Amino acid sequence: MFQSAAKTLSVATTTAATLTRGTSFSIRRYCQKTPATLRVSEAVSGAKLGANVKVQGWVRSVRPQKANLFLHVNDGSSLQSLQVVASSELDDPLLTLGSAVEVTGTLRKSPRQRQPFELEADRIHVVGDCDPVDFPFKIKERHSLEYIRQFPHLRCRTNAFSSLLRIRSEATTAVHSYFKENGFVQIHTPVITSNDCEGAGELFQVEPSSPNNEEGEKFFSVPAFLTVSGQLHLEVMSGAFSRVYTFGPTFRAENSQSRRHLAEFYMVEAEVSFTQSLEDLTKVMEDMFRSATEHVLAHCAEDVDLFHKHVTPGHRVSPQGHFGFPEICLPNRCKIFINSPPDGYLSLRYVSPLILLSHNIDRGSSFLQWGCDLQTEHEKHLVKHCGNIPVFVTDYPYDLKPFYARDNLDHPEHTAAAVDLLVPGVGELCGGSLREERLDLLKARLGEYLDLRRFGSVPHGGFGMGFERFLQCILGVDNIKDVIAFPRFSHSCPL
Amino acid sequence: MFQSAAKTLSVATTTAATLTRGTSFSIRRYCQKTPATLRVSEAVSGAKLGANVKVQGWVRSVRPQKANLFLHVNDGSSLQSLQVVASSELDDPLLTLGSAVEVTGTLRKSPRQRQPFELEADRIHVVGDCDPVDFPFKIKERHSLEYIRQFPHLRCRTNAFSSLLRIRSEATTAVHSYFKENGFVQIHTPVITSNDCEGAGELFQVEPSSPNNEEGEKFFSVPAFLTVSGQLHLEVMSGAFSRVYTFGPTFRAENSQSRRHLAEFYMVEAEVSFTQSLEDLTKVMEDMFRSATEHVLAHCAEDVDLFHKHVTPGHRVSPQGHFGFPEICLPNRCKIFINSPPDGYLSLRYVSPLILLSHNIDRGSSFLQWGCDLQTEHEKHLVKHCGNIPVFVTDYPYDLKPFYARDNLDHPEHTAAAVDLLVPGVGELCGGSLREERLDLLKARLGEYLDLRRFGSVPHGGFGMGFERFLQCILGVDNIKDVIAFPRFSHSCPL
Repeated sequence: MFQSAAKTLSVATTTAATLTRGTSFSIRRYCQKTPATLRVSEAVSGAKLGANVKVQGWVRSVRPQKANLFLHVNDGSSLQSLQVVASSELDDPLLTLGSAVEVTGTLRKSPRQRQPFELEADRIHVVGDCDPVDFPFKIKERHSLEYIRQFPHLRCRTNAFSSLLRIRSEATTAVHSYFKENGFVQIHTPVITSNDCEGAGELFQVEPSSPNNEEGEKFFSVPAFLTVSGQLHLEVMSGAFSRVYTFGPTFRAENSQSRRHLAEFYMVEAEVSFTQSLEDLTKVMEDMFRSATEHVLAHCAEDVDLFHKHVTPGHRVSPQGHFGFPEICLPNRCKIFINSPPDGYLSLRYVSPLILLSHNIDRGSSFLQWGCDLQTEHEKHLVKHCGNIPVFVTDYPYDLKPFYARDNLDHPEHTAAAVDLLVPGVGELCGGSLREERLDLLKARLGEYLDLRRFGSVPHGGFGMGFERFLQCILGVDNIKDVIAFPRFSHSCPL
Repeated sequence: MFQSAAKTLSVATTTAATLTRGTSFSIRRYCQKTPATLRVSEAVSGAKLGANVKVQGWVRSVRPQKANLFLHVNDGSSLQSLQVVASSELDDPLLTLGSAVEVTGTLRKSPRQRQPFELEADRIHVVGDCDPVDFPFKIKERHSLEYIRQFPHLRCRTNAFSSLLRIRSEATTAVHSYFKENGFVQIHTPVITSNDCEGAGELFQVEPSSPNNEEGEKFFSVPAFLTVSGQLHLEVMSGAFSRVYTFGPTFRAENSQSRRHLAEFYMVEAEVSFTQSLEDLTKVMEDMFRSATEHVLAHCAEDVDLFHKHVTPGHRVSPQGHFGFPEICLPNRCKIFINSPPDGYLSLRYVSPLILLSHNIDRGSSFLQWGCDLQTEHEKHLVKHCGNIPVFVTDYPYDLKPFYARDNLDHPEHTAAAVDLLVPGVGELCGGSLREERLDLLKARLGEYLDLRRFGSVPHGGFGMGFERFLQCILGVDNIKDVIAFPRFSHSCPL
């Protein structure tokens, strides 16, 4: 022990000079005297015009011409890349699609029409090369969402997916902003839980990979699962906060490879206390949806435009709607979301779609009868029938909804105060209900759930919105795997 | 099938009238003609003075006097409760601590000193009663954090924990705001992963609770775990975005009941591309910590004050620091975090603490020698020694850090470009490093990880901050279980 201390001291003596504030540890690695570093988003909007600047990013295109070399450089800060113009002498065989570069030069007005500003380079340094043979994306090729999905670790380097990720990030901000501005407290509901909120089965169970405790003993003493909903935990909180929300990952062990399912997806969930009717909920659902859509369109105009015009343009020219309504292009669809009518979105009781769909769907499998849940197919038809606008469907048959939905006590129909928000292209976007706050009516199955009703129980309700579905809806993306950074589904968990 | 359709139509006919816009489904439940509803936070600041208003919330205190009844009502929108003054005639045996009430009356200036405004009630309706015998919290008793921790579904009804939850929500906003304002894109890194980033063991494994596929076949085809860090996924993204971050739950299957460990906790993680030195990282770490602290103090002054003055006051009067520095009270500690010196927080190379700690710690077990990692005990001592300020420790021995940390290639010491930020009361708050971007130096073990270095590899680095530790640090909370809504640890996963 003393020997160790002695060794310590001798090492230490030689470095006592390092006991100074600040930069003593930093030895700059590959930079000389450096000009101001600009992000691409700043450079393309003409910041520091005329100044000597440095830009760092990845090459998106290379066009060598006789006298000049043209590059486009992108650093993820915007969809637009910065055009770099250099003397041919600065060309380098390592300048290929995907290579990382650091360019210094002068930012100037561009004589070309396609961009207002460009960087006249006096130095191009290839920071990291990129073998164009092995790199799965090619210059000037437009790769489909299906193709790039094969490369989960590289697809962020395409225009489409980097736009998607910026939109997703901004949509996250939009959701948080909406709730914050409306006085909701954010709760981090747990991922690991001993509850099965929906009672739906399809749970993931969690155990340490190498159990180091006694045989058979569980880590948490009880079976533990990945959450399927934060609702019960939000309900706990709605006994002290009249407005709470959560926004995080939820899980289903559904053995499906479909375009609509993921094993891990994001849910926005809210609970509102002292509700008096379903309207108190539908107002929040509608406001949130509208405000998030508006925020994303305002803050990611270019990125959204890329989707509407180039990535998912099929939606623009799709055939006429089923029920005589013309198909609406994506940008107009989004405008309809934002400019809802004065009374709010259309709202139908569950029985109404029954009439409509029974009259209009002529496939045997699509007949509906009282007590049937609406399938995605029905939901999409209904939305189309109504003119491709968002539609609330309320007051479902009681037996269709989970135990916590509030009984409307209406006879003979017997419905629950539950509501879904259906939107074009997706079907159900949000689902919610008033919660059964009456202890005597709640033949509940969960100890603490009952306790919540014993101590100052209040009428309350809540809903959840599938965040991926929201993105699919406003962008027109068909496959849910294309709106999440790292999709997980059965037989697929790379990285 | 035709029979079903017929039944459908007959049900439908009777309800065709519901096909109208708006409120057709809503039957208001228990309200009469209602005055404007105010949140408690609005009422206590005198909104709608003189007007007839309605306030909903939970009773925090009841004081019946001869002529008047005094209540305090809270709805989670602020620490302050609203004082309600009513004629004794409105008293009700159901008005007890925890009961839910709806009070209508006139908001007026209070003749009493303790609050500027109060509600003169003309109606008090007990929405939900609360049995004072069974309810675990009592009027006028100050319950300890330990006591309330026994009631995970009810502790949000105490002042201390509802303050904590508001602070946590605001701190979340603060973190997102910082990154957004600085051009970072938020990535939802996955919870389920096939990687073990830290190689630390202690993983939770994930499998469907009721396997419905072929025997022995895994749901994801590969073993799948709960993430211990989003770093590798952020590194994927840092090949297209020069600034990315993630903020979400991470997991450790650590069999520990200690004050410092949770099985599920929140991490803020960031990656920055085109770094040139550790300074590029420490600047972000420092800025984020300062800005988040400042934001919380500014937006949750009352709630933070409750902690500093009443919940964790021990920190105010604790004995003199170990190394002759006086102990600093929590509010001043936070001021020091915010007003960092012009050169930034103190930064020491790893070797420096060795000298300091070897000289100053006189317990046999605390001797340090080159190659030893700093234990929490060392970290706290070091921070105290330096005057209870945040301290960066940089350039750890290479062998102490994971494979992805960048080799400083310095001989004979052989250090890695890694850094920890140590803070008072907690020890390590953030840990980060430059990442090894050089393919030839990276004898890596992960397929895709290598691929990231093949296509446009750039110098980059990142760090993670324990979000609970951040809250503990600024609030002076000793037990990590007291700064998270639903703590999970070995043998504990209620709800």
